[in-house]
Amino acid sequence: MEASPVEGLPEIRDGDDLAAAIGERVDFEDGDICCIASTVVSKAEGRKADLAAFEASDRAEAIAKRLEAITGESKDPRFAAAVLEESEELLTEAPFLLTATRFGHVTVNAGIDRSNVPDADLLLLPENPSESAKRLSEALGVPVIVTDTSGRPFRYGQRGVAIGWHGLPAARDWRGEHDRDGRELDVTVQAVVDELAATANLVAGEGGGGTPAVVIRGWSFGDHAGSDDLFRTEADDLVRQALREWEVSE
Amino acid sequence: MEASPVEGLPEIRDGDDLAAAIGERVDFEDGDICCIASTVVSKAEGRKADLAAFEASDRAEAIAKRLEAITGESKDPRFAAAVLEESEELLTEAPFLLTATRFGHVTVNAGIDRSNVPDADLLLLPENPSESAKRLSEALGVPVIVTDTSGRPFRYGQRGVAIGWHGLPAARDWRGEHDRDGRELDVTVQAVVDELAATANLVAGEGGGGTPAVVIRGWSFGDHAGSDDLFRTEADDLVRQALREWEVSE
Repeated sequence: MEASPVEGLPEIRDGDDLAAAIGERVDFEDGDICCIASTVVSKAEGRKADLAAFEASDRAEAIAKRLEAITGESKDPRFAAAVLEESEELLTEAPFLLTATRFGHVTVNAGIDRSNVPDADLLLLPENPSESAKRLSEALGVPVIVTDTSGRPFRYGQRGVAIGWHGLPAARDWRGEHDRDGRELDVTVQAVVDELAATANLVAGEGGGGTPAVVIRGWSFGDHAGSDDLFRTEADDLVRQALREWEVSE
Repeated sequence: MEASPVEGLPEIRDGDDLAAAIGERVDFEDGDICCIASTVVSKAEGRKADLAAFEASDRAEAIAKRLEAITGESKDPRFAAAVLEESEELLTEAPFLLTATRFGHVTVNAGIDRSNVPDADLLLLPENPSESAKRLSEALGVPVIVTDTSGRPFRYGQRGVAIGWHGLPAARDWRGEHDRDGRELDVTVQAVVDELAATANLVAGEGGGGTPAVVIRGWSFGDHAGSDDLFRTEADDLVRQALREWEVSE
């Protein structure tokens, strides 16, 4: 398996044809998978915003005040309003805003990016990343994964994850398959789109030297059952259940 | 960047020279990184065990009874005893045993594997995976990552993670670096060993057709600050704090 950054992409702006910009620079082969950072997908889709566009509701004011009290840093209630707007649920309001986006991705601040936006305050995640992946996949003729980077419980640091995908299943299901000794495997469902997103993130880099698109070549999903369930439902997520009942002690 | 499975490794058994078995099959180049599944590291280190070796304490009995009541499946209290033995802390006792191992890895059942063990009931994780990685790295002459696969909150499916590493930092620190427009990056610390472990897991496969060692070629840590903090302390892990106060409703 090879992972290669797509070199020479220009800065992507509102309305740019992202698929064409990538397609011009890659001679795709059968079996290739294209991983594209959500930042450029959002830029092409015009998902930037200014804080002035958000009116601070009472809830947003309260959240910002509480975060200020806990963190000792000044917080803009309009940013809290933007996070609320982009979120289906706030899993925690303090010590930071852990959110479930409207499409199911659990991340801090609804994945709103305050860096890497040339001409606005905020870059929002794509509204429906799997729809974006579908459009890009149909234009490029290969499966597409829209990626984000986010932190996680239990482990420090961020890693690449998939927030949208089209043209391959999200997960590879090993259920019923067996090990060398004929015992049923403990590992049953492998979240391959997240592993592909992590691979892409290794070669994509960040910021000025970064490239937002990576081609994975020579990897095959293989002859396994597939699943598109990636975002846990609350019923299947005890951490989400625990967070619902938890309050940070101030 | 290329990821290639090490082909033709024999079944590894207690006392086998794992580094030699890998080294004979790979012509390592400068900059290569070798990812090795914890299963074969454990086998070479004789970390297998039989349930009969574990005496069910009162706590193990109580845990097994509670799991039986919740899951409706019969549970062996000696397995609960094995998990307790391998754990520094149980984050949850139900609906399953979410544990922090003695070396800091948060995973279900302390990562004890009931499949893929030819001649015993259980395969335990290496006692100190970074020590194992150090031995293997010194023998192979390249950085080594010892990998595991585990599930996670918020997202379905398992993915490869690093549980031990030697010869490279666990994380790449972008703090103070800037994007194309000179803004400070939102993403600050990238858990590269986990992303490399995820990459390896994509090509390693599982079970009978699986290969436990993968060579990553053509990836560079680059000129960034590094960090070896991978496992969160409880103070830095609100999910762990929330789980401590949470009880599954029965």
